[in-house]
Amino acid sequence: MESLKKYQSYINKELLARINSPQYQNPKGLYEPCAYILKNGGKRVRASLVLMASKMFSGNYNNAISVALAFETFHNFTLIHDDIMDGALIRRGQDTVHVKWDVNTAILSGDAVMILAYQFFQESELHVPQLFNLLNTTALEVCEGQQYDIDLEHMSLSDSIVTQEQHITMIELKTSVLIAACLKAGAIIGGASEEDSDLLYEFGRHVGIAFQLQDDLLDSFGNVHTFGKKIGGDILENKKTFLVIKALQNLSSSDAQLLVDLYSKKDISSKEKISSVLHLFTKAGVKEETEKIVEEYFAKAEKHLEKLSLSFEQKKELYAFQSDLKMRAF
Amino acid sequence: MESLKKYQSYINKELLARINSPQYQNPKGLYEPCAYILKNGGKRVRASLVLMASKMFSGNYNNAISVALAFETFHNFTLIHDDIMDGALIRRGQDTVHVKWDVNTAILSGDAVMILAYQFFQESELHVPQLFNLLNTTALEVCEGQQYDIDLEHMSLSDSIVTQEQHITMIELKTSVLIAACLKAGAIIGGASEEDSDLLYEFGRHVGIAFQLQDDLLDSFGNVHTFGKKIGGDILENKKTFLVIKALQNLSSSDAQLLVDLYSKKDISSKEKISSVLHLFTKAGVKEETEKIVEEYFAKAEKHLEKLSLSFEQKKELYAFQSDLKMRAF
Repeated sequence: MESLKKYQSYINKELLARINSPQYQNPKGLYEPCAYILKNGGKRVRASLVLMASKMFSGNYNNAISVALAFETFHNFTLIHDDIMDGALIRRGQDTVHVKWDVNTAILSGDAVMILAYQFFQESELHVPQLFNLLNTTALEVCEGQQYDIDLEHMSLSDSIVTQEQHITMIELKTSVLIAACLKAGAIIGGASEEDSDLLYEFGRHVGIAFQLQDDLLDSFGNVHTFGKKIGGDILENKKTFLVIKALQNLSSSDAQLLVDLYSKKDISSKEKISSVLHLFTKAGVKEETEKIVEEYFAKAEKHLEKLSLSFEQKKELYAFQSDLKMRAF
Repeated sequence: MESLKKYQSYINKELLARINSPQYQNPKGLYEPCAYILKNGGKRVRASLVLMASKMFSGNYNNAISVALAFETFHNFTLIHDDIMDGALIRRGQDTVHVKWDVNTAILSGDAVMILAYQFFQESELHVPQLFNLLNTTALEVCEGQQYDIDLEHMSLSDSIVTQEQHITMIELKTSVLIAACLKAGAIIGGASEEDSDLLYEFGRHVGIAFQLQDDLLDSFGNVHTFGKKIGGDILENKKTFLVIKALQNLSSSDAQLLVDLYSKKDISSKEKISSVLHLFTKAGVKEETEKIVEEYFAKAEKHLEKLSLSFEQKKELYAFQSDLKMRAF
């Protein structure tokens, strides 16, 4: 993402300096998987948001780096354990930790990565009680979100007519609160008022929900060339995305039953399954409806950004960030 | 343990008050397993040691309760994840979390229990930087110890002639540093000097090693009525205890080979396996030798206790604690 570029190399440099330090080398069986996930970067969205928010208020972001790395590292811990739970084989184009090593290694090194997050956090002496509370609260909420996701996946599709609100609560906890907390943490470090910190939190919460719903949309309706992943992956994995929930609500009971049957059918080709499901999604109007909801969340996010007591110049980077997200490849 | 009794009910009451609070109720799939492990008590050794150490120096232990619960809760997190890794079925007489629920639930609720430890820690405002560093350092060391243990278990027995020192380093990290850190944390809260805090840490480190070696001994040579567990459990599980390491060092190469063979033999009754292994242990003189080493560690522990700048009256509880450990049922 263009808007994050200026932060990424600084974040990578600081993270590497820590991971490569002598104290994190032995036993190799523990620390090699930690380094593997932490070095195999990703976009460093969360750490960048901490730095970006801090800079908005103080013009400076160097003193926010430890907290930025703490949130980024916590995120990487969740990836290791979530990948075990989801049976995911590939992450950022490489084998997941439990595939490259084994499940026990992924459990233990995931634990170590979480503790590393707290060790990086510990480096900072700024606003400790407030930020520690934010980190802990958010960490627990992310676990709650993962549990709600598991609960949802365990329901049979015919029973899973959960409300749109319940599904969004799951997304919010699993994805958005961490984005929101990163922005708030940066704001606190930058010396923002409580009101401004909370506005940034709300901006992040809404953007995070929009982002995740958009992800569900792209997986079914994206352009394979620009999305970068195979279209229909969620459908083949029978994932209970927002689109499925919405479709079950909108379709006639016979069409809804057809959709449920498609998700449990085994003697069907991937191509046929994807096209049949997409046909029902289209019939249910979920693309347009979800696009509208995504738009609404982005609009709500923007309202919070507008209210911030800063100049447009100071908010520019966050506007660019939101705009980057909005323009993700259809 | 008699010496811990006065603290246990206070610890249980304070822990229950937290676990039962509304914020830790939903989703049930996450928090029920957390409450299950945390309520199914154990002896609360670690929390008791924090309180005991605090009281030694300040006469008061109420202000150490949050930190005590943090260390106790961290210990319970390690139990959930270690039990998955070890394939353990029973813990404190009940099904382990991954047996009662499943592995994914045990991973996620274990993660949540670790975060709870940090939330309890966060309640305290005393000596935060120093204690936070102690908690994080110790937490990572415990993971390192678990990894060294896994590495050891993965070696074939014939290759695993590791030195006594390597084995003790594993025990030290996996078990002792947490005991030591609890005592040091309590001392810091009680206002102890740096020298006294370090002396208590060393006391705990040596006692912890003695305790674990004694555990290995009791499992092979204990009295079934007083030990409370089946004798020979470690042998049947092919665990690479200190006794095996020691026996392989002491035995002639032909007897050592016999021992290796016994550990890989499948067509042998439990009774015959245990008695044959015990025969070789006896031939190798491991009982007497390990008893001597246990004695030495207890003696070293006591030396550190003696050096503390406190009256005998103030140290009385810790002497009683050590004496309780020493007298564990043979």
